[in-house]
Amino acid sequence: MRQSLPGQGASRGTALGRARIRQPHALEVAEERIAEADVPAELARLRAAIDLVRGEMRDMRDRLHGALAREVGEFLDLHALLLDDPELLQGLDELITIGRYGADYALRLQRDRLASVFEGMDDAYFRSRIEDIDHVIGRVHAALHRRDAELLGVAGEILVTDSIAPAEIAQLQAQGVLGIITAGGSALSHSAILARSLHLPLVVSAPEALQRINDGDVLVIDGGSGLVVVEPDADDLRAHRGRKRDEKREQQQLHRLRREPSRTRDGVDIRLYANAESREDVAESHALGAAGVGLYRTEYLFLQRPGLPDEEEQFRAYRDLVLGMTGRMVTIRTLDIGADKADRSGLALRNEPNPALGLRGVRLSLSRRDVFQTQLRAIVRASAYGPLRILVPMVTQRSELLDVARLLKRVVDKLRRDGHAVARQIPLGAMIEVPAAALALPTLIDRIDFLSVGTNDLVQYLLAADRGNDALGDLYTPMHPAMIRLLHDVISTADANGKPVAVCGEMAADPLFTPVLLALGLKELSLHPSTLLQVRRAIRALDLGQLRESAPALLRARDRAGIERWLARASEPA
Amino acid sequence: MRQSLPGQGASRGTALGRARIRQPHALEVAEERIAEADVPAELARLRAAIDLVRGEMRDMRDRLHGALAREVGEFLDLHALLLDDPELLQGLDELITIGRYGADYALRLQRDRLASVFEGMDDAYFRSRIEDIDHVIGRVHAALHRRDAELLGVAGEILVTDSIAPAEIAQLQAQGVLGIITAGGSALSHSAILARSLHLPLVVSAPEALQRINDGDVLVIDGGSGLVVVEPDADDLRAHRGRKRDEKREQQQLHRLRREPSRTRDGVDIRLYANAESREDVAESHALGAAGVGLYRTEYLFLQRPGLPDEEEQFRAYRDLVLGMTGRMVTIRTLDIGADKADRSGLALRNEPNPALGLRGVRLSLSRRDVFQTQLRAIVRASAYGPLRILVPMVTQRSELLDVARLLKRVVDKLRRDGHAVARQIPLGAMIEVPAAALALPTLIDRIDFLSVGTNDLVQYLLAADRGNDALGDLYTPMHPAMIRLLHDVISTADANGKPVAVCGEMAADPLFTPVLLALGLKELSLHPSTLLQVRRAIRALDLGQLRESAPALLRARDRAGIERWLARASEPA
Repeated sequence: MRQSLPGQGASRGTALGRARIRQPHALEVAEERIAEADVPAELARLRAAIDLVRGEMRDMRDRLHGALAREVGEFLDLHALLLDDPELLQGLDELITIGRYGADYALRLQRDRLASVFEGMDDAYFRSRIEDIDHVIGRVHAALHRRDAELLGVAGEILVTDSIAPAEIAQLQAQGVLGIITAGGSALSHSAILARSLHLPLVVSAPEALQRINDGDVLVIDGGSGLVVVEPDADDLRAHRGRKRDEKREQQQLHRLRREPSRTRDGVDIRLYANAESREDVAESHALGAAGVGLYRTEYLFLQRPGLPDEEEQFRAYRDLVLGMTGRMVTIRTLDIGADKADRSGLALRNEPNPALGLRGVRLSLSRRDVFQTQLRAIVRASAYGPLRILVPMVTQRSELLDVARLLKRVVDKLRRDGHAVARQIPLGAMIEVPAAALALPTLIDRIDFLSVGTNDLVQYLLAADRGNDALGDLYTPMHPAMIRLLHDVISTADANGKPVAVCGEMAADPLFTPVLLALGLKELSLHPSTLLQVRRAIRALDLGQLRESAPALLRARDRAGIERWLARASEPA
Repeated sequence: MRQSLPGQGASRGTALGRARIRQPHALEVAEERIAEADVPAELARLRAAIDLVRGEMRDMRDRLHGALAREVGEFLDLHALLLDDPELLQGLDELITIGRYGADYALRLQRDRLASVFEGMDDAYFRSRIEDIDHVIGRVHAALHRRDAELLGVAGEILVTDSIAPAEIAQLQAQGVLGIITAGGSALSHSAILARSLHLPLVVSAPEALQRINDGDVLVIDGGSGLVVVEPDADDLRAHRGRKRDEKREQQQLHRLRREPSRTRDGVDIRLYANAESREDVAESHALGAAGVGLYRTEYLFLQRPGLPDEEEQFRAYRDLVLGMTGRMVTIRTLDIGADKADRSGLALRNEPNPALGLRGVRLSLSRRDVFQTQLRAIVRASAYGPLRILVPMVTQRSELLDVARLLKRVVDKLRRDGHAVARQIPLGAMIEVPAAALALPTLIDRIDFLSVGTNDLVQYLLAADRGNDALGDLYTPMHPAMIRLLHDVISTADANGKPVAVCGEMAADPLFTPVLLALGLKELSLHPSTLLQVRRAIRALDLGQLRESAPALLRARDRAGIERWLARASEPA
């Protein structure tokens, strides 16, 4: 029987599909023995499944490249490492060869064996890995029972769940989920931000969803309005088709914005830079009319290979990037690697209890000057091929900037002496992502040529809330009064000192937040090409004068609800 | 031959003793088999050593109670858990019983076995635990070869090392080290702050120490002036005795301050509260004339036992504390537990990648309302026995305060209805330790009756620098311009709103920082009794009017060196 449920729209897009109620993960398999003659076939079956999962994870990783690579990639990398673990693989082979167990049961035994080691240790770090093992083994188990063409889990379905973790969003999208309904959650949560950046329809705060929807029910949802209809009737389906047509029309209109300026209604140009690493990103940035590359993360050169890339390898990557942007400014961020990355370079420490608060970014670079100097040499050599600037991550104190500037000058002088062509000026900028750097910006500003506010990390430290930690619910959000005030102060200080300032975190890529950033005085954003046109559209619909006038009201908001009310007013069509 | 080395004083106190050069940990043991008849004796020998180490760790833990319990205790707890691990113990027994290995070799084999499991996983979390295993196994190994009366490692010696981790400081002091010389380091580092709070002589920045001092050399050091003399002559020994006499005289003078007010030279009273948990702390706080208990950490009730303490058990602890302070104000902080604590209560999550940025403090309490309500009931019932106030840790946003106030009101109403005696007013305060709460204090201040600034965590988040992470060197320090400015703003906002504000982190307990806190307008400090008299002495030597006048210069400092220069001027005798 048709019913309509209350919900709140969190990520636009309409979807029609069957419901998939999320069950907790279970791997219950009965004991099963095989004949000796079947051993080779069973081994081959298991290996094929493992290869399939490995391939899927690689594909997913590749599709993420650039967009959410940092966010979700680490998670995937960790699981990929588990899948390559000789301990795990050898144990499985032995269980089949010697124990004569079927592949399913071998998986289950090996899972229990590994889990018992970690459970026995009675220590947070060990035990935490059981979840990862379960995840990986669960995937292999699923692959064992899948025909090749069939997609994983939720393809073509609408997931109905209690809550959704940020790390799951991109995985589900890559698996082909049509949309998601959560009983709890908020449109300002980290998961919702990710869903919007991936154009994945999401309805949150639908408290009755789990009680009223059954597995397999047909659903229509609209992530814009928050509509959820169970067992839709003819009118619902007509309305759904109407919304689909609207979406298509909207896409076409959006496409036309490729050649339009990012200019507010009252005629002020906002510079939209692109976050880009891959050749495809660079080509698309070009096609979309990005002002340049605002963030090129050099981690990719380091993370996707064992060992360290040498000067020549790095130089070629940076040079090709500069050439690809044909004279538009390119911003290369020096290595931001840390213990939270599943890297094989051996650079990051492996024993930090809180990697986010550890030896990362410029801290690591300054403790490995050999590696840092090689990177600086490669960047400086690339500067001969077009405009380029250097961005330093995790700056915390003035002495770090002085150190980097000194090293850079030495590298430039040496390369010139050795006859290399080097740009006359290579601007040096700082990521503002450590709260201390944002707060004490007046003590740093004379040593930097430009700023880029990394809102993802800044929010994380400011709120002492790990953005990947699902247990924190909606605590992590840029919509905290402290973040609004700090952003305002950073932009004002930069303006007063004539230094260009951009925002390059998720806030910049989400048109929902564009009114906030513009109201606070921001004139530059850097974001992945995938939402660039939407942000441009948002800018073109806004009146900067009006926004600037309403900034004091935004700064007075006492809590998230106050900021949401301001946003609702600011987004009203004039 | 006598020589004198350059160094910088970091923690006062003079010491005379032999040098112990720190060697990297090594556990090289040759294979050794035993006769079957010797198995029981070897097992007994190993178990005695394990018991010895367990006992030492318990002693150390007990001695820490109150003072650095939070800081170092977690580290010890983690190691104690490893030592109780059945996997580890059973493996050792089997190696001796079945493998006929001697205890030394069994330890080494078991160490390698455990390490190989974790190394094989190729994952940061697993591998990080190898260090802990090495530490614990190294201790057991040392205990196997020690006569009972003999003290661990460095007792009665002066440790000479490259650098010293914060977690080691208290361990070394408990082991009876006389003093420490480090080749690197700074007087403002976290390790130096800990050394001062434990009255452990420390000389830092003695770059030649490792080259010029040999194991067993006789040394004289003075942690006040930074003096290091190798193979002292008669004059040096005379001077050493003179300094020892001065120290004794100083102690006596300090003792006389027990009955003196904490009043600046120009006659302004500063309130010194005590951080106290144990009966001894409470008695001493009383004897030292503390204004009350400024911080009672309730974690101890939860961490030192399996399971959760019930209402009655908590009530008795809080009531005894209130009675012990005979009418002086007692500040009870609600549970601040998180994944970084080695707790057995089962409350904290076990899978957080960055526990410091996770579900801790009020976040955990609000997600476990049953546990929180029990705690609030116990506290409210204790309020009938004397003045008491409630302090909420990790406050990040306004909604948390509203939630806690609502819960508290419900608990109070229910207890009154049920005929319990309850104080007329129970002030509700917030720890200011999350940067967002400090920055957005104006949006919270109307909902709190008092504030306590937790500088340890605030610095950690503000600088994105884990204070237990040795790899970060001197990055972690409260002497960052951002911290100075933020403290100034917090104190000003509290003053303007007529709300009492105290500082309760390490900054408050270190007389070196007293001029900074007073210059910024602070009138209340909360600190462990062990340095209360020294801070009182510092206060009595300061002129508040002068300090307040020089505050603008402090706020203008661009970096740590600038703050150090200000401190040097402020500490000059007038």
